[in-house]
Amino acid sequence: MGEPRSHSEFQPQAESRSTPTGTPPWGETRVVGKALPRIDAYERVSGSATYTLDVTLPGMLHAAIVRCPHGHALVKRVDFSKPLAMPGVVAVLGAGDQEAALDWYNEADKGAQSRLFDPHCRFAGEEVAAVAAENAYLAADAARQVEVEYEERDVVVDMDEALKDGAPRVHEGAPNLVREPSKYERGDVEKGFAEADLVVEETYRTSVEIHAPMETHGSVARWEGSHLTVWDSTQAPFDVQQALARVLKIPLSSVRVIAHYMGGGFGSKLQLSKHTVIAALLAKKTGRPVKVVLPREHSFLCVGNRPANTMTVKAGAKKDGTLTAIEMRSRGVVGAYASWADATYLATDLYRCPNVRTEDGAVYINAGPERAFRAPGFPQCAWALEQTIDTLAAKLKIDPVALRLKNMPTASQLRKDMPYTSNGLPRCLEEGARAFGWEAARKRPKGDGPIVRGVGVAAGQWGWEGQPVATVIAKLFADGSLSLTFGAADIGTGTKTVMAMVASEELGIGLDRIRVEHADTGTSPYGVASGGSQTVHVNTPAAREAALALKRQVVTMAAAQLGVPEDDLTLAGGEVASTKDPAKRVPISELKQLRQQQVIIGVGTRHPHPAGKIALPFAAQFAEVEVNRATGECRVVRLLAAHDSGRIMNCLTFQNQVFGGMTMGIGFGMTEERVMDPQTGRVLTANLHDYKLPTAVDVPADMTLVAIDPKDTECNTTGTKGVGEPATIPTAAAIANAIYDAVGVRLTTAPITPARLAERLAHPVTVG
Amino acid sequence: MGEPRSHSEFQPQAESRSTPTGTPPWGETRVVGKALPRIDAYERVSGSATYTLDVTLPGMLHAAIVRCPHGHALVKRVDFSKPLAMPGVVAVLGAGDQEAALDWYNEADKGAQSRLFDPHCRFAGEEVAAVAAENAYLAADAARQVEVEYEERDVVVDMDEALKDGAPRVHEGAPNLVREPSKYERGDVEKGFAEADLVVEETYRTSVEIHAPMETHGSVARWEGSHLTVWDSTQAPFDVQQALARVLKIPLSSVRVIAHYMGGGFGSKLQLSKHTVIAALLAKKTGRPVKVVLPREHSFLCVGNRPANTMTVKAGAKKDGTLTAIEMRSRGVVGAYASWADATYLATDLYRCPNVRTEDGAVYINAGPERAFRAPGFPQCAWALEQTIDTLAAKLKIDPVALRLKNMPTASQLRKDMPYTSNGLPRCLEEGARAFGWEAARKRPKGDGPIVRGVGVAAGQWGWEGQPVATVIAKLFADGSLSLTFGAADIGTGTKTVMAMVASEELGIGLDRIRVEHADTGTSPYGVASGGSQTVHVNTPAAREAALALKRQVVTMAAAQLGVPEDDLTLAGGEVASTKDPAKRVPISELKQLRQQQVIIGVGTRHPHPAGKIALPFAAQFAEVEVNRATGECRVVRLLAAHDSGRIMNCLTFQNQVFGGMTMGIGFGMTEERVMDPQTGRVLTANLHDYKLPTAVDVPADMTLVAIDPKDTECNTTGTKGVGEPATIPTAAAIANAIYDAVGVRLTTAPITPARLAERLAHPVTVG
Repeated sequence: MGEPRSHSEFQPQAESRSTPTGTPPWGETRVVGKALPRIDAYERVSGSATYTLDVTLPGMLHAAIVRCPHGHALVKRVDFSKPLAMPGVVAVLGAGDQEAALDWYNEADKGAQSRLFDPHCRFAGEEVAAVAAENAYLAADAARQVEVEYEERDVVVDMDEALKDGAPRVHEGAPNLVREPSKYERGDVEKGFAEADLVVEETYRTSVEIHAPMETHGSVARWEGSHLTVWDSTQAPFDVQQALARVLKIPLSSVRVIAHYMGGGFGSKLQLSKHTVIAALLAKKTGRPVKVVLPREHSFLCVGNRPANTMTVKAGAKKDGTLTAIEMRSRGVVGAYASWADATYLATDLYRCPNVRTEDGAVYINAGPERAFRAPGFPQCAWALEQTIDTLAAKLKIDPVALRLKNMPTASQLRKDMPYTSNGLPRCLEEGARAFGWEAARKRPKGDGPIVRGVGVAAGQWGWEGQPVATVIAKLFADGSLSLTFGAADIGTGTKTVMAMVASEELGIGLDRIRVEHADTGTSPYGVASGGSQTVHVNTPAAREAALALKRQVVTMAAAQLGVPEDDLTLAGGEVASTKDPAKRVPISELKQLRQQQVIIGVGTRHPHPAGKIALPFAAQFAEVEVNRATGECRVVRLLAAHDSGRIMNCLTFQNQVFGGMTMGIGFGMTEERVMDPQTGRVLTANLHDYKLPTAVDVPADMTLVAIDPKDTECNTTGTKGVGEPATIPTAAAIANAIYDAVGVRLTTAPITPARLAERLAHPVTVG
Repeated sequence: MGEPRSHSEFQPQAESRSTPTGTPPWGETRVVGKALPRIDAYERVSGSATYTLDVTLPGMLHAAIVRCPHGHALVKRVDFSKPLAMPGVVAVLGAGDQEAALDWYNEADKGAQSRLFDPHCRFAGEEVAAVAAENAYLAADAARQVEVEYEERDVVVDMDEALKDGAPRVHEGAPNLVREPSKYERGDVEKGFAEADLVVEETYRTSVEIHAPMETHGSVARWEGSHLTVWDSTQAPFDVQQALARVLKIPLSSVRVIAHYMGGGFGSKLQLSKHTVIAALLAKKTGRPVKVVLPREHSFLCVGNRPANTMTVKAGAKKDGTLTAIEMRSRGVVGAYASWADATYLATDLYRCPNVRTEDGAVYINAGPERAFRAPGFPQCAWALEQTIDTLAAKLKIDPVALRLKNMPTASQLRKDMPYTSNGLPRCLEEGARAFGWEAARKRPKGDGPIVRGVGVAAGQWGWEGQPVATVIAKLFADGSLSLTFGAADIGTGTKTVMAMVASEELGIGLDRIRVEHADTGTSPYGVASGGSQTVHVNTPAAREAALALKRQVVTMAAAQLGVPEDDLTLAGGEVASTKDPAKRVPISELKQLRQQQVIIGVGTRHPHPAGKIALPFAAQFAEVEVNRATGECRVVRLLAAHDSGRIMNCLTFQNQVFGGMTMGIGFGMTEERVMDPQTGRVLTANLHDYKLPTAVDVPADMTLVAIDPKDTECNTTGTKGVGEPATIPTAAAIANAIYDAVGVRLTTAPITPARLAERLAHPVTVG
């Protein structure tokens, strides 16, 4: 699903890796790296872009889903007689249908099994039944008329409660501790702590964060005979296709999933959701297309979240700042079905440290299941680890930037010291600090009124280099215009634009003459899920190779037409010209053989980078805050992000990603928190009013991006490493460190709400 | 556009041709050649197939077109005030818009130029204006409210009249004879006639035939920013894309044409029509999708027809039947804008004859333009030539089958004696005659009551081997199911099914696990127009190569997984197995590397056949008729078609084509005739009541197909040559010859209506 799942996956892979294709990285570029607007900007801002929400088919029905209102209950009886009596209600689906018993389990990690409509509801929001009606309002009304008789059971929504003896069991016969915690160890941790001049230890907590993309989850399903087409708001059309084929027990070739415009997912749309299957089943039952779009409140309940983690970090260092040992233990809540809440990656690999021990456990509670959320586990880990480093720095009286630089690794210790193709983290720290004016800001008086200022820094890396599978098909038309076809979804990040820019770079064809068709399992070659920060670095090398395949054909045609050796020809500005005789030139649109063939195609795939190296992105972020000591209000005054993501493909889309990631980091660290009622198990914040996403007033006007290009020639043939997740990893920790700098108090629980901060300022305790 | 245009195109091409790919033709087959139902049969019969007529988009408007009611007129004024006052009318398009002056000319042959809305209307039905409204009924009503002031001009709708001095000019300043007639000559025709023992000469006439596909022409246009998507009922999505880009002056990459289900075209849908441009312009103007579907009566006026030809054939033969000379002169009416009405091909190449001279001319009249119609020119030519051969046979007292066999060519004389890859015509004649019981039927008494019986034969070939450009992309999914993507439209002939069968043959994957996506210029590789009988023989070799490309990858994966040399492995039934150790086997769905890559693709292209040869299909058809000498009614009692189309891919689709082609031949020879009013230039038969398409009562229950497979190993790697047009070429002539056999009277004008036949039976004349 595009994100790390266990430490074992980080071991060097046995499979041999060939060297990358002979294509060298670009030197100077004409298109790539520039600040160019999206190729689909007009469609996106004019409203003509067809998101799943906009898909409307003739005869289409609308479905609504009946969800269990109780945190834990057994369904005893479902009565559809009232909705079926309503004019315009066409079909119902529930316990009476044999499809209700379809197997269901978390795609990503094969978590606890359940059924499509499981008679044992383990969280408030679990699917119980569905209705299809002539319009969405009627469907919603009809769903409310379904009478369900429940037998309520005891609820547990708190991790500590869930782990107590005698706590309600989320799954009968199974402990709430999902499985034996996963463990990692290297070196001799006890010896490391013994060697340390300073050891600190603290427990940090984060809250459940909801993905809350602009576009809620939705699907439209249509059958043509035995063939199913699904328009889905997904990051991973091919994964949804695969899951649908598995659940419905039909061939992959019979399932077509289309994801053309997509309004964000952040990991929550990497896998099949039950509503999609429900739409497909209702469409089959009625012989009509069926659309289901989750209401915002449902999207808070059942399509994922970032687990809340409780993390204890113990770290030891020499007086000079050299780390001697790190120990980290994490427990995360995964809701009722998921099974993965790891949050210790950075503790094992961000800093050079010979002695490390980690333990990750996951805990069932009566809540909606966890799903991958932008850098799963990493912001939580940064929250704990980077505050720990900050504490060490403070106690050792070493500048936090200097302390980090002191412990920079040259290789991935988690992968048996496999070297990085490049590691720009030292430069991120140094150049970021310089651009931020770090030293001056540190020395500035904090202020002596109620409002004080502080600055903080945190570092991060993203620990997964993606699945090396991508194919791009490029079609060159006789007039020299171009079409690109690939499988990856553009989840709002500018994938289409960047792919077109790569082709434009190689072929000299203007972006206005390039069309992208993509993310359609029926007509696109395979594309990996758009998640895990892999989209650009997996797909752009394939786009480049496809363009080069066309370039070779064009040059061959031109050589024959001009009577010039191929080696003497260059392609630029849509024209092939001799380097030796300026009179010998021909525009692509006047190539006779191309006109005869009408269209030629070039196919490109991504080649793996050299064996024995790992390509990962790095980041350091700097924050300045203003804290009102009287009220606990904290304002993030400015943020600076210094990123090594490899080559930047488009300044604008890159900046979008980084600023968006930092905004999300503000939410994670300062505002966002799912609150549940421990009595009923209901989510009390299932709306955009009570759940505090950061808004314009929470985000500083002063956000700066410092791009560190390591000129990585080994990671792939476009020099790219990825930016989606690193952008959000260190932000909250940098803000927390800035608050500590401002007020001398460390807030260990995220989000740092005014209430929490005010309470701590009223009752300060010394940490460590 | 997929059909012959001038003799010069039949000359051997200078370009070098490589030998076909190493893939040998199949020996025995498991799937190919079988009688299998369409893979989209359910969709087609259940109504779930989305034809252009069924495409419905949110916010879509409907357009109606105002057409000139006069055969010849100048538009003086167009007043939209009434329609614009109607609620629900959204936009109008006409002389006031600058797009009205867009250049327009016949795509196929660069005929006379005009404008999108030409103020000089040259036929009744020409486009004058258009309106877009909220529904189709309102649009039609509003179109009727557009007030147009015309200045009428003199009309000419008869070819002979049009060629007279002082006839009204269809194009001012240009003669009605479109251009200098095209001429062909070989040998010494005068010498040939001098050497003949018998010379016959007669003039034959055919009528204008309307394509009348089940689905009338229609398009839906939608803009997204600068990108246009058009769903079009077309045989040639890539040609429509190209023409739209040219007319609208935008890049090919900005035009996407989709043609998924298509209800017949017969050549009338090989090119862009004005209504498609009108839909695109109204969509641009309104910012909403626009659909336009031609009413049946409009489809009779403006989207093409088979020209009426007047053909004089003179032929000489020795007593033993050896042809010594053929001379043929044709004139055809092309309506107001087209320019091609050739009808002499068969006279030059069907029979061995050293001395041949032909002349083809085209004549403008005030009527809708000609368009390619199933075997353009060939049924007309067969009508004239094959009756001439029959006359020779009668006069020489040689059996008509024997006379034809006497003159079989071994090479294409039109192409400087280029050999055929195969010529099954002698077998078609011999085996067809045997299956028909020809000799016995000839000897049977005609009958002595008013109702008499007769039998006839005619031969044909199709003279064009297609454009050798096709690419197919095959995707193999991890569960061993398959997707095929290609550009060609399936115009109702079973292309999708046949392509899937080819892949199934090679990969052993069941048809229920193969999905086809096609005919979409946005997502498909290029495909030639589905016309010219080229679809199967151009595309199936590419499908086979794509499947073989997958097969190689699958075998390589299996060899690695099983630890067996690739050469020892075979793929059958979705499983790779060792030929040496039965225990070593793995289903495609369990290939680990495939699961890792999720999808692999294979790309196939068609390779040209060996240089210096030509691959063409041949046919002989036999008819038996019952003529009522009192009433002139003629019933076709039975038909037998013997076809060499190369390998037959699917018995059912092949039979569909042949029986459909013969039915069309019945229409051409017996029932169909466009009738125009010479005073007004209006079409009097612009509906399915007055225009007599053959119906169930006209078609014999006894239709037989004799398939002659020449086992052609040179034409391509699937051994296919094409069937669409040959199926309809000889039918009418065979029927006319059967009528002659029955009543001893030769009907030279098609269609042979009861009135014409009764008149000739009342006033018999001796022919020749």
